[in-house]
Amino acid sequence: MATPNAVKADAVPAPSLGKVVVVGVGLIGGSFALALKAAAAVATVVGVGRSASNLSSARQLGIADRTWTQDQRWTDELIDADLVLLATPVGQIPALLALIAPALGAATVVTDAGSTKQDVIAAGRRHLGAALPRFVPGHPLAGTERSGAAAARFVPGHPLAGTERSGAAAASDALFRDRTVILTPLAETSAEAQKRVADAWTACGGVVGTLEAARHDEIFAAVSHLPHALAFALVAQLAARADALDYFRYAATGFRDFTRLASSDPEMWRDVCLGNATALRRELSAYRAELDRLDALLVSADGDGLIALFERARVARNAWLAHHRDAND
Amino acid sequence: MATPNAVKADAVPAPSLGKVVVVGVGLIGGSFALALKAAAAVATVVGVGRSASNLSSARQLGIADRTWTQDQRWTDELIDADLVLLATPVGQIPALLALIAPALGAATVVTDAGSTKQDVIAAGRRHLGAALPRFVPGHPLAGTERSGAAAARFVPGHPLAGTERSGAAAASDALFRDRTVILTPLAETSAEAQKRVADAWTACGGVVGTLEAARHDEIFAAVSHLPHALAFALVAQLAARADALDYFRYAATGFRDFTRLASSDPEMWRDVCLGNATALRRELSAYRAELDRLDALLVSADGDGLIALFERARVARNAWLAHHRDAND
Repeated sequence: MATPNAVKADAVPAPSLGKVVVVGVGLIGGSFALALKAAAAVATVVGVGRSASNLSSARQLGIADRTWTQDQRWTDELIDADLVLLATPVGQIPALLALIAPALGAATVVTDAGSTKQDVIAAGRRHLGAALPRFVPGHPLAGTERSGAAAARFVPGHPLAGTERSGAAAASDALFRDRTVILTPLAETSAEAQKRVADAWTACGGVVGTLEAARHDEIFAAVSHLPHALAFALVAQLAARADALDYFRYAATGFRDFTRLASSDPEMWRDVCLGNATALRRELSAYRAELDRLDALLVSADGDGLIALFERARVARNAWLAHHRDAND
Repeated sequence: MATPNAVKADAVPAPSLGKVVVVGVGLIGGSFALALKAAAAVATVVGVGRSASNLSSARQLGIADRTWTQDQRWTDELIDADLVLLATPVGQIPALLALIAPALGAATVVTDAGSTKQDVIAAGRRHLGAALPRFVPGHPLAGTERSGAAAARFVPGHPLAGTERSGAAAASDALFRDRTVILTPLAETSAEAQKRVADAWTACGGVVGTLEAARHDEIFAAVSHLPHALAFALVAQLAARADALDYFRYAATGFRDFTRLASSDPEMWRDVCLGNATALRRELSAYRAELDRLDALLVSADGDGLIALFERARVARNAWLAHHRDAND
């Protein structure tokens, strides 16, 4: 490592992050670690997870320098950590926040990669809130920090880079390249903490933006959570048929793409659906109203109405494809 | 052409088809022509279509040796044609069958590539039925032909190889390679006519099977027509919102794959949805019942129920992916 680092010294200064703790060393957490390492933006990555075999893969793949299973005393690693990323299924985040709160160092910034944000923020307020020690006076980051117990180093985030694959073996240092990463800071999040998280994602190749948490949850209920639920539902109801194999036998590439999301991790998506249930149910209701309209067009054999519906969809999707970075692999 | 044909004489005998007429020179019709030519399985391809500019592309791309627009006297081409493929949107097939019936040659076999089969067969019975001249006695194909006016050279078909692209420019001689092609012969379809169509698709690289037409329509309502309708509906209801751009801005690869079918040709899918409306509405109803169950799980925050639903879907989809040829590009 010494020689390449020396050669790139002009372009890449000393790692901006000393120690990063990644809890949940799967597709997202593992890719975050790999990308930071590829950018020489971190000195040490500590991985924490539930499965010893996945953690072993993570070490072998160069994702983590050392690892701990969640039942070990891994929170001792937090005292001198610059950043901790919670990249577990989102349902585990409240308990993790409660667990880490008393162990955080004076300059440790906390972020997450959950697909829902209001529930994570509520948990952050509950468990970190006043418990978070203020930045230590005299610490390099403390200069412009807002004072008061509410000043938080909690920066909720959501990288738009999931795939249906999971586990450390699916991780890639290129996963976030040119991908949108959304931060939904709290009112009390310090600018310094937010910058540290934004810089880390930028180093990973991401394009960082911010969004209000409630709006985030509304939007992702529509463009991500609902499509996942719809894909799971389609395959589940086919699979439940006595003659399911007759159907699957003739399913082809259209079915494959429509149902790709149904190969996603069930535990992750249970947590997302429950964490954002209100917005998801609202979207499900809007969608069912659209299916009512579609069914009415079929009943009345309204060809012009079907063409209009399909054309509106096609025009909108093609315009989106042409103009949006995140549409493309 | 003479030299390559001579060199490959052992592998590829003289083209088995003299003249093939393709009506609708788009993705499917164009790819059929290109694949037959690549296999040296046809001497002459005549293309028929609505758009002069698309036909011009078809000639330039080597899809058709000559072309006619549908308003010209193209049916004169049928008298000495070995095969005519109707590859238009399926709603045009009844009128086309009525148009070609009196112009067919004594040995012309008729097939189609429509995604619905019972409606095509009903139109075939109506327009071809007794109107179809019997195979000419003494014609090479006549040897084992069943006798009677109902003996038909109509072989309905459905290649499982659509994409969301359309037009001659999207055609490829590899589109059908290793793809399932379903034939749904009528009881009165002659074995010789069926073999001619099966051989043509085999020459294109397809893997030919047969299915009863009603079963075909049930199965494809579930694995193809419903997913198309659902994808169109999702994008259409998003696009209709005043703040649609806020949503599309954050849509990513999951949304892209889920909605790929919504970029399909609206006219083609109007025809499919109307042509198979009964089976499609039955599938839509079954799907809405599954969405009821999903919503009930959300209301009761039943995490175990959600996991069970998602896991059933994931296991079924992954088993399908692992075992089915048509799952892969």
